[in-house]
Amino acid sequence: MSDYGISKKVDLDYDKAVSKVRESLSTEGFGVLTEIDVKATLKQKLDKDFKRYVILGACNPPYAYKALTSENNIGLLLPCNVIVYENDDGGSTVSVIDPIVAMNMVDNPVLAGIAKEVRQKLINVIDLI
Amino acid sequence: MSDYGISKKVDLDYDKAVSKVRESLSTEGFGVLTEIDVKATLKQKLDKDFKRYVILGACNPPYAYKALTSENNIGLLLPCNVIVYENDDGGSTVSVIDPIVAMNMVDNPVLAGIAKEVRQKLINVIDLI
Repeated sequence: MSDYGISKKVDLDYDKAVSKVRESLSTEGFGVLTEIDVKATLKQKLDKDFKRYVILGACNPPYAYKALTSENNIGLLLPCNVIVYENDDGGSTVSVIDPIVAMNMVDNPVLAGIAKEVRQKLINVIDLI
Repeated sequence: MSDYGISKKVDLDYDKAVSKVRESLSTEGFGVLTEIDVKATLKQKLDKDFKRYVILGACNPPYAYKALTSENNIGLLLPCNVIVYENDDGGSTVSVIDPIVAMNMVDNPVLAGIAKEVRQKLINVIDLI
């Protein structure tokens, strides 16, 4: 558990964990707009070996729209990142950004309300896995 | 100028600004790993009209590798977002996330050093436009 994320270790192999995360995000109304295969990217760009690790950019469109119409630059903090990586000792870790911590950088009360609601949805995602 | 981003209004139309941003990112060693066309996404998902607005996920691979090997969950804060949108009164705004503010969420001195160097590179990107 880090201060900026909400994490869970799961007893699923990496591929199953990623697939379960996608399913849970969809259940909670999040689309996956971006995807970075960290292992493949580091291999390709730097020829470095790294564990299996994905960064998914999740977006709940109605909340994103509210955020963008309330704060022009909020795209700097969108989408909400969800990561999955394999553990050294088996299983996988799933972690979601804590939108309340992230939105704390922004002095905007509308966003604070949105962050609270999106946080609950992301916790639901974690709970579903 | 927001607290979490470094912004510049430029006298370029949106398409030219986006193309200049890509060029400057490349000059400073950043690849663009993700891209969200906000206007198209909001139209498609919600049938809402919005200004032209793009979120580019920029990544400098050597710095990303250092960050990831120093902090497992740092993928939650990667890549560095760069946004471009059209202004109501003409021209465009370019804004980059301030990595020092973002990495402040994380209690890790190695990351603080990386954030400082990446910040300078992102300021160079802005200066080149």
